[in-house]
Amino acid sequence: MGISFQLTHTDGRARAGVLRTPHGEIHTPVFMPVGTQATVKAVPPRDLEAMEAQIILANTYHLYLRPGDELIARRGGLHRFMGWSRPLLTDSGGFQVFSLSAIRKIDDDGVTFKSHLDGSFHRFTPEKAISIQENLGADIIMCLDECPPPTDRDYNHIALARTHAWAVRCRQAHRRADQALFGIVQGGIFPDLREQSARFLTALDFPGYAIGGLAVGESKADMFQVITWMDDLLPADKPRYLMGVGEPTDLIRAVARGVDMADCVLPTRLARHGAAFTRDGRINMRNRIYAEDDRPIDPECGCYACRHFSRAYIRHLLQAGEILGMYLMSIHNIAFLLDLMREMRAAIVEGRFQAFAERWLARYEAGCAARDAGAPAR
Amino acid sequence: MGISFQLTHTDGRARAGVLRTPHGEIHTPVFMPVGTQATVKAVPPRDLEAMEAQIILANTYHLYLRPGDELIARRGGLHRFMGWSRPLLTDSGGFQVFSLSAIRKIDDDGVTFKSHLDGSFHRFTPEKAISIQENLGADIIMCLDECPPPTDRDYNHIALARTHAWAVRCRQAHRRADQALFGIVQGGIFPDLREQSARFLTALDFPGYAIGGLAVGESKADMFQVITWMDDLLPADKPRYLMGVGEPTDLIRAVARGVDMADCVLPTRLARHGAAFTRDGRINMRNRIYAEDDRPIDPECGCYACRHFSRAYIRHLLQAGEILGMYLMSIHNIAFLLDLMREMRAAIVEGRFQAFAERWLARYEAGCAARDAGAPAR
Repeated sequence: MGISFQLTHTDGRARAGVLRTPHGEIHTPVFMPVGTQATVKAVPPRDLEAMEAQIILANTYHLYLRPGDELIARRGGLHRFMGWSRPLLTDSGGFQVFSLSAIRKIDDDGVTFKSHLDGSFHRFTPEKAISIQENLGADIIMCLDECPPPTDRDYNHIALARTHAWAVRCRQAHRRADQALFGIVQGGIFPDLREQSARFLTALDFPGYAIGGLAVGESKADMFQVITWMDDLLPADKPRYLMGVGEPTDLIRAVARGVDMADCVLPTRLARHGAAFTRDGRINMRNRIYAEDDRPIDPECGCYACRHFSRAYIRHLLQAGEILGMYLMSIHNIAFLLDLMREMRAAIVEGRFQAFAERWLARYEAGCAARDAGAPAR
Repeated sequence: MGISFQLTHTDGRARAGVLRTPHGEIHTPVFMPVGTQATVKAVPPRDLEAMEAQIILANTYHLYLRPGDELIARRGGLHRFMGWSRPLLTDSGGFQVFSLSAIRKIDDDGVTFKSHLDGSFHRFTPEKAISIQENLGADIIMCLDECPPPTDRDYNHIALARTHAWAVRCRQAHRRADQALFGIVQGGIFPDLREQSARFLTALDFPGYAIGGLAVGESKADMFQVITWMDDLLPADKPRYLMGVGEPTDLIRAVARGVDMADCVLPTRLARHGAAFTRDGRINMRNRIYAEDDRPIDPECGCYACRHFSRAYIRHLLQAGEILGMYLMSIHNIAFLLDLMREMRAAIVEGRFQAFAERWLARYEAGCAARDAGAPAR
């Protein structure tokens, strides 16, 4: 199936493993930076390699519309096109169809939508989503699914049947042996629907399973409850991918509940808006309290931005609208999440995950609270 | 005076030399990338070092307004603030006052202007321009000058007296022994005024001389005529800095007329708008003819962009508005000009400058002409 997964350590529900792909090994748990349009925004591949990013994600919806999956196939596929020789994952395009485009029509066969770029009409079916992803050539690809709001029971009930039928068709359509096709468990915040979805998809024996439909409006308590159910329902020997989660505290609590992979645009989006992760909480680098702060963004971080530049300089760049500011912030925020995942993995391997997670969360959340209360910068 | 210059080779009027500064040696002729707001737009210092940029320029007007020269002085000066350990040059702010701000009043003592950022009023005098540049701490700093349109004789005549008086005051005000203060020759396109200016400033014995007031609307023939006069008028043992020139063919023709240093925002500004230099002329990377072009921007270039990415990919990034596109284009265009200056230097040292220049110009200009005539991409 293109990949193999070996679960090597468990610590409570937390898991460490190795995912082998045609473009290299991935040590899990892993955070996957998002390169929507075949680039992690503002970050050259060279920097991602230097930060030891193991796998990055690209968006099928965007690349299908521009520059086109066939153009990318003629260039030798997405790895070669974007100059990234390590593993890649593409989503199915489903989530973006439901969130970015204007939907013209959903039926059991597929979805017709209007491009957010030029208003042109397009149609995704399960077969089309697979065909596009085969053209892109990522190591891991995803089934087309329908993405209802997680708290709408009736819609989730109806959508689930469609998502399951589409999973069957995706599986049948998929031909490339060097790619692994993951199923996506849906069912919103409803335990019976989640169980039904997990059982249906597990029976299809996918090489990995995504937890879809979360981090889109439900409460954190609901999100973590669903993740815990998933840990009970999904097979232990297959990787679990939590889609769309990238807040550091969420990543810790997700890994604590058995998640192996996660992706999110959060680190790069926050960066472009001036927010930085630090071990003492998230900070707004545009705040005037940093105007003469000669420390790096995070004194414990070893990224290029933190090794060479001060908060004062980066704040100046952000205030002046300079691209270099967005670049340095993006590098830092991604490096921060990659570090966090590596630290979690080491803690799992050494059987001290819970203590690590508690200490990390306490420090981070105390820092956030102190800043919200107007305490001076640390 | 902070620097020393040694003219090591001449070939016709073309010159090669070594400029020693407190932050290292500069091999001339040299192109200086512009870092207006304490960053070469979109390019991290690491890449400038990798491309062997020898000196970069920053703008006094911008940094005075934001984040402020005193803030930068408190951070240890501009080198430390921006993470650049090689030589730096700052302009006096005069050109930006005359081009970017709304001028409230010019008198013999100085100029009062309105910030382009927030409309606040500020005043530059010769003493203030030196004080700001001493706070910034560049290796080479410039006298405050008045910048009239080059073809307006009456204005140039009046402005010249002021520029000369200000040069005297700048020289008197300047205290830092680790900085070299350059004079700026003005006088528009008028030989008598240029001669008068060169004689006046040379008598003040500056460690280097800038040729100001060019590349702002006069004809190319006029520009090169003025540069030739300057070669006759300025002392051979001092560096000559042509301000604001960065078009490759202009750089060659300027070096052919005895110019040692030049700066321009052109490579980075063009890059952000999608135009790339190649040895076969300037190309618009957004052109659809590059959509499936798997070659690098310039097959003979060794920059990071050209070693790793295709025209097809970079065009996609530019079309998609991705920062990475502007980054790769900026790196390439700067590397291109740095390469060109190094190649010119080698040709001068080896006594084959004229043949090099003729061959280079013929190829570049033929490429531009072919493209203008609609020939297929090479």
